[in-house]
Amino acid sequence: MEEKISHKKAPRQSPKTAILDCTLRDGGAMNSSRFSDKTARAVYDACADAGVDYVEVGYKNSRRFFDPSVYGDWRFCDESALRRVFGENPRPIKIAVMADAGKSDYRAAIPRKSESIVSLVRVATYARGLGEALDIVKHAADMGYETSVNLMATSSLSDAELDDAFGLCVESDAGIVYMMDSFGALTPRAFDNVFSRCLAAARGRGKRVGVHIHDNLQLAFANTISAIRGGADIVDGAIAGLGRGAGNCRTEMLAGYFSPRTDIRPILWCAQNEIEPMREKLRWGFAGAYMLTGIFGAHPSKAMEFMRGENGKSLAEFYDELCPL
Amino acid sequence: MEEKISHKKAPRQSPKTAILDCTLRDGGAMNSSRFSDKTARAVYDACADAGVDYVEVGYKNSRRFFDPSVYGDWRFCDESALRRVFGENPRPIKIAVMADAGKSDYRAAIPRKSESIVSLVRVATYARGLGEALDIVKHAADMGYETSVNLMATSSLSDAELDDAFGLCVESDAGIVYMMDSFGALTPRAFDNVFSRCLAAARGRGKRVGVHIHDNLQLAFANTISAIRGGADIVDGAIAGLGRGAGNCRTEMLAGYFSPRTDIRPILWCAQNEIEPMREKLRWGFAGAYMLTGIFGAHPSKAMEFMRGENGKSLAEFYDELCPL
Repeated sequence: MEEKISHKKAPRQSPKTAILDCTLRDGGAMNSSRFSDKTARAVYDACADAGVDYVEVGYKNSRRFFDPSVYGDWRFCDESALRRVFGENPRPIKIAVMADAGKSDYRAAIPRKSESIVSLVRVATYARGLGEALDIVKHAADMGYETSVNLMATSSLSDAELDDAFGLCVESDAGIVYMMDSFGALTPRAFDNVFSRCLAAARGRGKRVGVHIHDNLQLAFANTISAIRGGADIVDGAIAGLGRGAGNCRTEMLAGYFSPRTDIRPILWCAQNEIEPMREKLRWGFAGAYMLTGIFGAHPSKAMEFMRGENGKSLAEFYDELCPL
Repeated sequence: MEEKISHKKAPRQSPKTAILDCTLRDGGAMNSSRFSDKTARAVYDACADAGVDYVEVGYKNSRRFFDPSVYGDWRFCDESALRRVFGENPRPIKIAVMADAGKSDYRAAIPRKSESIVSLVRVATYARGLGEALDIVKHAADMGYETSVNLMATSSLSDAELDDAFGLCVESDAGIVYMMDSFGALTPRAFDNVFSRCLAAARGRGKRVGVHIHDNLQLAFANTISAIRGGADIVDGAIAGLGRGAGNCRTEMLAGYFSPRTDIRPILWCAQNEIEPMREKLRWGFAGAYMLTGIFGAHPSKAMEFMRGENGKSLAEFYDELCPL
């Protein structure tokens, strides 16, 4: 596999791994999924223009859990909203949505594939919610979609827990088994351990393997490259890294890395004109407090609270607060 | 080698690799080496408190090349300036300085070790300047210092050029041979290639091996970890990543990674109180334009010019300008 990112030595062979852009879905954690139609369409068009394989446009979650006076259309992804912005999906890109285990009225929210412009339904879950997650996966598969089960917070699981969880995932109807580093806490060696366990479980069972990495330790791109080199079938990115807390691996990095199969220019345009203007308000991306939750494998919500500065603590004091000693 | 960064599973064994903090030296590229005495002392103290092994406080360059009405004391590192701030170096940390090949009056600037509080003289050079660089190394070694030769812009060299350059380095008086990724252009595989060639040349010749990585592709920490796992003897960091362009691997990341041998708290304090307040003015750190010079293996000065915005170009236009096609 050729992986030199430089364009000086063209032609090169691009990795075959698929790219999924989750800007509108994971970014929804920072703005309550309140993207304008213009921004949503711009992300979709940029990804299609760039040659990205999937664009995940939001959640299929329930208004029972998310007040629609607070959360925008991309928290629910009704077909009417999808068609308003993306029409009948005329571009050569697949649309994905995510249902959260425990937060989705999935039987009502996920219609037959013939009635939807969605191609892939992803189901995110902690290990403890895997039972319901796989019920959602089964429903989506029965309705005719590509499906994935996305195991969150893998950094917090023991090897035995990882093997148990991945074992359940590969016996399910999911076509893709994803390992998520939700806390951005996996150093390269720890990443290799989780990824190799996921891969070992999925191989031979006909499952694809995906990875989704947060950037708390500034390792999102590096661990994603490691997955690509190690045989991942699909990897996640977000434009300008937009996502919860420290954010995700950047889609523009992946588009550069996968060149010439992909074109970085449309992603650069979208990052500069649609996403970066939101940074001052939404404040995603690497920061010292996110680094510390990454070091301790803690949920980024603690860092987000610290960064609101309501308690006036220093970073060193925040460290002491996280430290179990 | 244990490398899990999490503190949940203490006790752990820290890597034995030495850490060199180059905040005051590499950061000098962004402020003409005009750090206040207070900031310089704060960096020195934070590094000493944290258990960092070396603190590089500036350049040993010549006033013939750098106008002292423009450049501060840390571009020249006269013994009088060093002693004004660091006294006789009372803390358990070694002081380093860097001479640039072609820009240093090294015979005048580097006195006998007995007259200096400096322990390590590093000499930075492009491959084409290696002859003079090794003359400086010889002088510094003759004067009694630890020495290193730091090969810059390794991403721009062919395998044969790398082998030739490292071959000359290991035959020299330098105690440490450093590979620098000055342009932050090395993907993990390309990094492995350069690092392994450096290591292969140095092993058996009694030389230590060092790495210094810029963060244009957000791979500085990842490639530095790779070097640590691969047997590097010394690695560079900078507090809050302060350094030219996209900046360096963060010392706080290294201090977290090397815990419990190192204590991250003093570095966090210094980052928050001394370094981050300079960010708005100095504008170092990852940005799309630095990513693009990294992708193309170009000098970051092109990105710095772009970011001054004098020409009003978009990032996509900057990409086209860099693209050789």
